[in-house]
Amino acid sequence: MGAVLLGVGGPGQHHTWLDPEIPGDASVDIRWYIARAQQAEAARFDHVFIVDSQFITPDSPHHYLNRLEPLTLLSAVAVHTSHIGLVGTLTTSYNDPFNIARRLASLDIISGGRAGWNVVATGDGGTAGNYGRKEHYDYATRYGRALEHVRVVQGLWDSYEDDAFPRDKANGVFFDRSKQHALHHIGEHFQVAGPLNLQRSPQGQPVIFQAGDSDEGRDLGASVAEAIFTHAASIEEGVAFARDIRARAEAKGRNPEHILIVPGISPILGDTDEQAREKEAAIIGGKSFDRALKELGRPFGWHDFTRYDLDAPFPDLGDLGDRSFRTQAERIKKLAKDNGFTLRQVVQHGIESRRSPFTGSPLTVANEIQKWFEAGAFDGINLTVTVPSEFARFVDEVLPILRERGIARSEYDATTLRGNFGLPIPQNIHTAEKAA
Amino acid sequence: MGAVLLGVGGPGQHHTWLDPEIPGDASVDIRWYIARAQQAEAARFDHVFIVDSQFITPDSPHHYLNRLEPLTLLSAVAVHTSHIGLVGTLTTSYNDPFNIARRLASLDIISGGRAGWNVVATGDGGTAGNYGRKEHYDYATRYGRALEHVRVVQGLWDSYEDDAFPRDKANGVFFDRSKQHALHHIGEHFQVAGPLNLQRSPQGQPVIFQAGDSDEGRDLGASVAEAIFTHAASIEEGVAFARDIRARAEAKGRNPEHILIVPGISPILGDTDEQAREKEAAIIGGKSFDRALKELGRPFGWHDFTRYDLDAPFPDLGDLGDRSFRTQAERIKKLAKDNGFTLRQVVQHGIESRRSPFTGSPLTVANEIQKWFEAGAFDGINLTVTVPSEFARFVDEVLPILRERGIARSEYDATTLRGNFGLPIPQNIHTAEKAA
Ligand SMILES: Cc1cc2nc3c(=O)[nH]c(=O)nc-3n(C[C@H](O)[C@H](O)[C@H](O)COP(=O)(O)O)c2cc1C
Ligand SMILES: Cc1cc2nc3c(=O)[nH]c(=O)nc-3n(C[C@H](O)[C@H](O)[C@H](O)COP(=O)(O)O)c2cc1C
Repeated sequence: MGAVLLGVGGPGQHHTWLDPEIPGDASVDIRWYIARAQQAEAARFDHVFIVDSQFITPDSPHHYLNRLEPLTLLSAVAVHTSHIGLVGTLTTSYNDPFNIARRLASLDIISGGRAGWNVVATGDGGTAGNYGRKEHYDYATRYGRALEHVRVVQGLWDSYEDDAFPRDKANGVFFDRSKQHALHHIGEHFQVAGPLNLQRSPQGQPVIFQAGDSDEGRDLGASVAEAIFTHAASIEEGVAFARDIRARAEAKGRNPEHILIVPGISPILGDTDEQAREKEAAIIGGKSFDRALKELGRPFGWHDFTRYDLDAPFPDLGDLGDRSFRTQAERIKKLAKDNGFTLRQVVQHGIESRRSPFTGSPLTVANEIQKWFEAGAFDGINLTVTVPSEFARFVDEVLPILRERGIARSEYDATTLRGNFGLPIPQNIHTAEKAA
Repeated sequence: MGAVLLGVGGPGQHHTWLDPEIPGDASVDIRWYIARAQQAEAARFDHVFIVDSQFITPDSPHHYLNRLEPLTLLSAVAVHTSHIGLVGTLTTSYNDPFNIARRLASLDIISGGRAGWNVVATGDGGTAGNYGRKEHYDYATRYGRALEHVRVVQGLWDSYEDDAFPRDKANGVFFDRSKQHALHHIGEHFQVAGPLNLQRSPQGQPVIFQAGDSDEGRDLGASVAEAIFTHAASIEEGVAFARDIRARAEAKGRNPEHILIVPGISPILGDTDEQAREKEAAIIGGKSFDRALKELGRPFGWHDFTRYDLDAPFPDLGDLGDRSFRTQAERIKKLAKDNGFTLRQVVQHGIESRRSPFTGSPLTVANEIQKWFEAGAFDGINLTVTVPSEFARFVDEVLPILRERGIARSEYDATTLRGNFGLPIPQNIHTAEKAA
């Protein structure tokens, strides 16, 4: 049993601009991102993760409003760090595979092999309007496109065999043309000739992350992901999710060990368990009902819930959400129906669900992490703590316990994300074919 | 009369991988780009410029084969420099405006106001195949799209007024919703709702560069460019080009002084004029005929000229090139026809045309630059010298003369590209409308 993989979300995720430790303009301050990545690297974290969203209204919560483009951001972070993985979110719904392939390969080369791609198909349905579409793709199209998109990108990443560029000055040989391969892809959603204009990158291919929880989303993850971002409310849920994904992957002929499960977790640390629970209660109590009401709208395409009577039964929303975050929307509709909740109760339930299974003293939190890890509920975690002092507390008080128990690393194994994740370098498909 | 603006092309442009000073993998080595930008910044250059091309075959010249994506590259350079402008090429033909807008605004924010966009419509017709199209757009569509594209991007850059984000922690005010503006663009080529998910950038808007020499290309430059990359073989040609562009701009109601003309130049320096001419002769003599034959194919869509008899009249190519670099293709066809050239003579002429009007001793070259500048043949130059020692020679031997004459700067005027170029910050259109 290896180490718990450790990741941290970027400040673009933070809900906490009022926190005195966080500059009001953190989400657009590259020095802030670099400092956070360096802090995580000093603690031997495996990766930083940058989310994305592109649909904005005047009512969007503040942390959506103003964000740097993920890859532009990560390229700047790359040249001020040396070991930590750099995982950026890019949507397959509103990007061309050729552009994605070259941008990610460029990041992989610039960072010396630390690029990861969080493949999403876009949950915010309104994004469609920014890209010339009246509405977002339905789920079948969204995920059909995503799968084909990733395959095309991977094909482009194999445009050159590893030894295609001898760059032999003595003999004047820059390039071996027999090791360049055009893709000639003609599919349902994309037609891409290739080849890419970039050599194979240090990891062979950047690491594929994926996030999406529907049946279609899980199938995509099982097909192409090497790591999966998710949420988990309990060990049982985590184990069930991991089993489900791995079973799907095996059915597709993949090695299930080459898919790592990495849920987001938000530990709440106190000196004692009791103190931590008090802190949690204060956090929950401090959550603004109005903000939560606004956030509830997101899965339903940023639906405006202020127009309803809070104490009437949860409104009938028809198929609202089907072209946005359908899985989440359905979960909320079901919750309301099963419990006969009013709108106010649904919002309250959302606020309560911010309670973290990782609340307690450092020892309690370390125990819990170990329990989940050993039960197979995750292979790694993605910390969503972005207040530097809370992050430092996790590093200073929880990590040493995990290290002592041999389930957290003290040193990096490698300078690449694949190396630290223990993932193999995919063999170039053309080299493999020649060998066969 | 101000200073000659100074730019330098990135090593992705270099034809010289065999040069002992240039590492064979320079075109994909971010440390190399950073070092070159730092060298240029130490000499108080205004900008570095990164070209782009995305259509590759096994026969592509080596410096096209393997290149980092321009903006990913420049973001890494941004955080290791402080004053130099960062100009990246992005095509309007195979990108969505929303993506371009956020990526360039991100670079502008990350660099503290140093981003420039070289707007191109793509000359390599074969690029179409990488983006799902059978053939490249015809000229009318290509440039119609380009104009609308730039307008949409500029509209998105104005999504927020300068003071849209008070971030007032004391009063809990992050955002002023009255200062967010959706675009609601519905045009011939694009439909883009907006708003952008990013505040206005330090320059208000990144600086628009443009390169394209056809009638349509010049009109685009006159409509939107603040700086124009071009080639110039003589003072007369340069002056005529500048006059033409400025007349077109005035006809469109623009201030002609807000368009800067920046041709690429390749000085060849010697201790004496004679020594410089010998060096030039050696460079011309060293040019490989086979390589030049290959490069001749580019304007015609990388047409293969090896299939023709070199000593027969230049072949009749019909409309070949019309969907690639039409202007260049037509110039070559006309040259052959007017002079009754064979294919060999056309290739030889191409090699000869590499002679630089800026060949001579440092004094001669400085004189020539001053002459062109004062005649109005350019506002700045884009040095295509990328061998570090040749660059250093220009800096050490030519620049001091220009500085002494008061036409090259010794210190930066500003930390933004606009500031150094003397270009105004465009007022946010919504702020302007409110004031009116
Ligand atoms: C843990 C997690 C993180 C996600 N991060 C993003 C993100 O950064 N950007 C995005 O557009 N979608 C993100 N998604 C959304 C998915 O891409 C997907 O579009 C959405 O969840 C709806 O699809 P689903 O029903 O399959 O989950 C995330 C989903 C999960 C579960
Ligand atoms: C000085 C100069 C630099 C250029 N740089 C690029 C470039 O980096 N990438 C590109 O795709 N096209 C580049 N172009 C090509 C133009 O974008 C244009 O597509 C091409 O020249 C054909 O159009 P035209 O006939 O209007 O010139 C450049 C053109 C000039 C004149």
